Amino acid sequence: MAKVGIIMGSKTDLPIMQEAAEMLESFGIAYELNIVSAHRTPDLMVEYAREARKRGINVIIAGAGGAAHLPGMTASLTAIPVIGVPIKSANSIDGWDSILSILQMPNGIPVATVALNGAKNAGILAAKIIGASNDQILAKIDDYMKDLREAVIKSAADLDENKNVLD
Amino acid sequence: MAKVGIIMGSKTDLPIMQEAAEMLESFGIAYELNIVSAHRTPDLMVEYAREARKRGINVIIAGAGGAAHLPGMTASLTAIPVIGVPIKSANSIDGWDSILSILQMPNGIPVATVALNGAKNAGILAAKIIGASNDQILAKIDDYMKDLREAVIKSAADLDENKNVLD
Amino acid sequence: MAKVGIIMGSKTDLPIMQEAAEMLESFGIAYELNIVSAHRTPDLMVEYAREARKRGINVIIAGAGGAAHLPGMTASLTAIPVIGVPIKSANSIDGWDSILSILQMPNGIPVATVALNGAKNAGILAAKIIGASNDQILAKIDDYMKDLREAVIKSAADLDENKNVLD
Amino acid sequence: MAKVGIIMGSKTDLPIMQEAAEMLESFGIAYELNIVSAHRTPDLMVEYAREARKRGINVIIAGAGGAAHLPGMTASLTAIPVIGVPIKSANSIDGWDSILSILQMPNGIPVATVALNGAKNAGILAAKIIGASNDQILAKIDDYMKDLREAVIKSAADLDENKNVLD
Amino acid sequence: MAKVGIIMGSKTDLPIMQEAAEMLESFGIAYELNIVSAHRTPDLMVEYAREARKRGINVIIAGAGGAAHLPGMTASLTAIPVIGVPIKSANSIDGWDSILSILQMPNGIPVATVALNGAKNAGILAAKIIGASNDQILAKIDDYMKDLREAVIKSAADLDENKNVLD
Amino acid sequence: MAKVGIIMGSKTDLPIMQEAAEMLESFGIAYELNIVSAHRTPDLMVEYAREARKRGINVIIAGAGGAAHLPGMTASLTAIPVIGVPIKSANSIDGWDSILSILQMPNGIPVATVALNGAKNAGILAAKIIGASNDQILAKIDDYMKDLREAVIKSAADLDENKNVLD
Amino acid sequence: MAKVGIIMGSKTDLPIMQEAAEMLESFGIAYELNIVSAHRTPDLMVEYAREARKRGINVIIAGAGGAAHLPGMTASLTAIPVIGVPIKSANSIDGWDSILSILQMPNGIPVATVALNGAKNAGILAAKIIGASNDQILAKIDDYMKDLREAVIKSAADLDENKNVLD
Amino acid sequence: MAKVGIIMGSKTDLPIMQEAAEMLESFGIAYELNIVSAHRTPDLMVEYAREARKRGINVIIAGAGGAAHLPGMTASLTAIPVIGVPIKSANSIDGWDSILSILQMPNGIPVATVALNGAKNAGILAAKIIGASNDQILAKIDDYMKDLREAVIKSAADLDENKNVLD
Repeated sequence: MAKVGIIMGSKTDLPIMQEAAEMLESFGIAYELNIVSAHRTPDLMVEYAREARKRGINVIIAGAGGAAHLPGMTASLTAIPVIGVPIKSANSIDGWDSILSILQMPNGIPVATVALNGAKNAGILAAKIIGASNDQILAKIDDYMKDLREAVIKSAADLDENKNVLD
Repeated sequence: MAKVGIIMGSKTDLPIMQEAAEMLESFGIAYELNIVSAHRTPDLMVEYAREARKRGINVIIAGAGGAAHLPGMTASLTAIPVIGVPIKSANSIDGWDSILSILQMPNGIPVATVALNGAKNAGILAAKIIGASNDQILAKIDDYMKDLREAVIKSAADLDENKNVLD
Repeated sequence: MAKVGIIMGSKTDLPIMQEAAEMLESFGIAYELNIVSAHRTPDLMVEYAREARKRGINVIIAGAGGAAHLPGMTASLTAIPVIGVPIKSANSIDGWDSILSILQMPNGIPVATVALNGAKNAGILAAKIIGASNDQILAKIDDYMKDLREAVIKSAADLDENKNVLD
Repeated sequence: MAKVGIIMGSKTDLPIMQEAAEMLESFGIAYELNIVSAHRTPDLMVEYAREARKRGINVIIAGAGGAAHLPGMTASLTAIPVIGVPIKSANSIDGWDSILSILQMPNGIPVATVALNGAKNAGILAAKIIGASNDQILAKIDDYMKDLREAVIKSAADLDENKNVLD
Repeated sequence: MAKVGIIMGSKTDLPIMQEAAEMLESFGIAYELNIVSAHRTPDLMVEYAREARKRGINVIIAGAGGAAHLPGMTASLTAIPVIGVPIKSANSIDGWDSILSILQMPNGIPVATVALNGAKNAGILAAKIIGASNDQILAKIDDYMKDLREAVIKSAADLDENKNVLD
Repeated sequence: MAKVGIIMGSKTDLPIMQEAAEMLESFGIAYELNIVSAHRTPDLMVEYAREARKRGINVIIAGAGGAAHLPGMTASLTAIPVIGVPIKSANSIDGWDSILSILQMPNGIPVATVALNGAKNAGILAAKIIGASNDQILAKIDDYMKDLREAVIKSAADLDENKNVLD
Repeated sequence: MAKVGIIMGSKTDLPIMQEAAEMLESFGIAYELNIVSAHRTPDLMVEYAREARKRGINVIIAGAGGAAHLPGMTASLTAIPVIGVPIKSANSIDGWDSILSILQMPNGIPVATVALNGAKNAGILAAKIIGASNDQILAKIDDYMKDLREAVIKSAADLDENKNVLD
Repeated sequence: MAKVGIIMGSKTDLPIMQEAAEMLESFGIAYELNIVSAHRTPDLMVEYAREARKRGINVIIAGAGGAAHLPGMTASLTAIPVIGVPIKSANSIDGWDSILSILQMPNGIPVATVALNGAKNAGILAAKIIGASNDQILAKIDDYMKDLREAVIKSAADLDENKNVLD
């Protein structure tokens, strides 16, 4: 079965990156959570990225803040798709640093970048990637999208009962 | 066989988006190129996105500039993964508008965003997504990454012959 | 009588968008408040925008945050004027994302964009649009602008009594 | 008949602002073009804005670059709607100065802001504002939007004949 | 004796603009504090700016936030120097809007812009302007600058007693 | 008679800074032009700033690009007013670096900042500063502002003869 | 023995700059802490920078906020390397002002700039500079980097015991 | 003798990075020029960084554009100081991406960042780092700084002969 590797540079990123794990869990997709730092454990990052595919990992989600090199470096070390989550860390310049460090990869080595702190969407995107060849997962995403739709309709109905119209 | 749908809002985007097509072609991945505008043909965009999966499309690459809504709206209409290419169009504010319109999707509806004008990387990312469940494609990406490596080594060697050292 | 449709992508936008409703109410202009999400209920957004004119709506006010597609997509689906309110949502990049996603519409499909979180001004702008063909509403706006003027004069007078002059 | 007043701070803005005039002409909407500078002819700006309504003007389109005060100051002097066009002038800081000077109006005095150099959209927005109470103009906008749609379909068809598919 | 006119668009700007008044008071320079809004009392702003010189005012300090038009409009209505104070108001986009609206004035109509929320410096700059033709004021500024210097030397000495050196 | 010292960090800044000189010349105000670099001739900058007042200089205009320290450092060394001109030099980051390096001075040491490349306005501001105590100069600024006004009226009249009205 | 001079413009910068001192202390490198303001004590800054080398200082670390001139001016006055620490002070524009004022030095006068509020890294960089000719210090940096690595491995192990895998 | 390793990600960076080499040559400091890509040859980058010290390299200068990971990754792999040169590559977002990717390194792993395209300053900074323990090199930097000073004095003298003064 497909498996997603979730990595982050520091345990302070865990509260955000946990949301990716939760989405995957809700879709019944296996995952691992690891702390691997591009800058403090570059050798372990290389090893992680080089070995991931062999260990059955099909998609990697990498979250990092500031000069965020983990997603791009991981993508340079493996052919499997890497999703990057820019994290707005302390002393970040409003998140611009992590966004640009992850998004603006040179030709040849793409990173699938999601929104600032968008780990939840990273989990969904990983599911969509697996779903690209797995109708069962795709059906779960269909259901998830239906639930989102229902929630909006429910909100709208709640509002409707209280809304002011002055016709 | 997996197929990638490449869409863009205007034919002025074609010179950039063509690079995605060329990458896919080099990997032997089938694709379609279409012009579908979120703002000028919203009904066709809805139809395209709703029907894509049924027509055998597994990944969509959507490029757009300015207030770039095509990637995000397409992603809201299908469970298959959507890759967004921000394009620096005329009157763009240095590309920030298209980047932020594509990247900053709300929770629930991810778009896999690549670099500004990064259509080539969008093609590679689509291949990686297909490769997540297809070892043959993954092997081609491995080869492609080896070629990138060789080209750098070749550049380095060329430089080496001419470099100045004053030891 | 003219009617304004106020829509927003999520109920978290209501505290801000409510200010548009309050302004319209103060001008005696009928309005509706609805939650319609571009990304979670795209079909309902299409239906809303397509049907608005038939239901007697003359102006739409659409508020959204992040990659804010609701105003622009609504404008692509109806000939009536659409006012866009950029909302500074959680994980927004200082509001730049919603501003640029709403403001930078391509040629052909304008959105009348107001300031960040400027729902109050959206309500006034809707009144001005209706007032463009309705002298009674225009007179109310004249009165409103006089009230703004009086409030400044009152502030200035309060200050005057306490100000320090050292001549 | 409704009339639109187009104003700009300098004749160097004319090539851009002319596009608003051309759109209005195509919709058969009467307009005037004037040069009025907030900073070099503040008295004439006051007079223009104060008299516009009396002279039968229903909507004002004001274009300006840099510290662009013309749209906002005009809006402070009349109850009729004012559309602001940020212009990327020489020595502009990438257009940010004109965008923010026009968009970020305080509560009470809205300006309907369009995209950078978006005079064409300002013309269409003026038509939509007039169309809010004029079905004939609204029908012309419907036709215009259909033409936009047809042009995209034509582009798509042209592309289709030449596109590469490798199935 | 020279006099400085301090104006601001709203009483919410008073806590910041008060710092300009305090600096002037410390230099023994006469001043007035007024609330005059470019957008809510444009006529009073015109009157204020047109009459200031006649009333003996030699320098104007104008503070404003958001689309901050008060300093530039005042400068367009009088030959006396105008100092602009960008204020970071609520819903400001990190202060960029007020800075650019004040700083980026077109050729012909300068505004002497100080730092964000820099009302204190505006007071000092007004004193320097008066001091350009008044040796007594210039001598007070010399003294003020000496005091600044002494305060740093005092801080340094305090630090010195506690600093860690590991030689 | 009052005198203005114009300084710049490099002769490449001369084409822009010359505009300040030309404005002063047109007002009949004496000036000097000098090249003094904060970073390459810090001792000469200190000497220049310390001696300026003694040599009869009443206002300094300092232009610089990139990490532009010349205006602020000069202001720290003299009580006379310093006007800063941010210059968009080669390798500047769109002018932001020079603007922020000049504008964001700490409390105590103001620099009167003008627009990017705004040397012309610096010349006018210097004249206004001298005019604050010199009615003859003020009268010349009045005349200059009248000329600006006439030029706009002339432009408007030219446009008027050719404008399209479709009433 | 090598010595590092740590300077800052104000004692409010001490809590951040102290981190540089702590790093140096941990490496056993002698240092001094001083308050020297480019704008309030320019003469002392000149003296400090001119005398530093003679007093046995080999590297200077200079921290400053806003229009941060201390690092660049110090670098213009001595041949020894200067490390600049941009500090996000009150009224800073998100730190951009101090970053650009320090980073964007003209050709000829480099400042080794570290991250916003990155005084800790400035301390490490100073150690690396000393280590460039001192194997003992370099060995301590090796140890420090090993400690960083161990801490990540420890975090990863802690996470591992609690992580959710759904294989 | 000390040696500097200059590396860059692509030969397109050579025209800029060559300026670092030229500065070192002028100081008589040995150097090597290499092309090593973080993303296309990550293994060679690791090897280069790990081996540099052993091969007698004391300082590394690394230039890169876009999501510029080469300087930071190199710094994570060696204790010797790394100077980062942000390069404004094609499709860069005005250079912000490379600046932030290099500058905003996390605590523990500093990169000495210089200005955008500032390779010349990187060469000088490398010389200053070597000079921190080498009086002969420091003397050459003193001479270089004297030459900079002389060039400004020469420019000033040239200007002086032609300057306009109207006293």
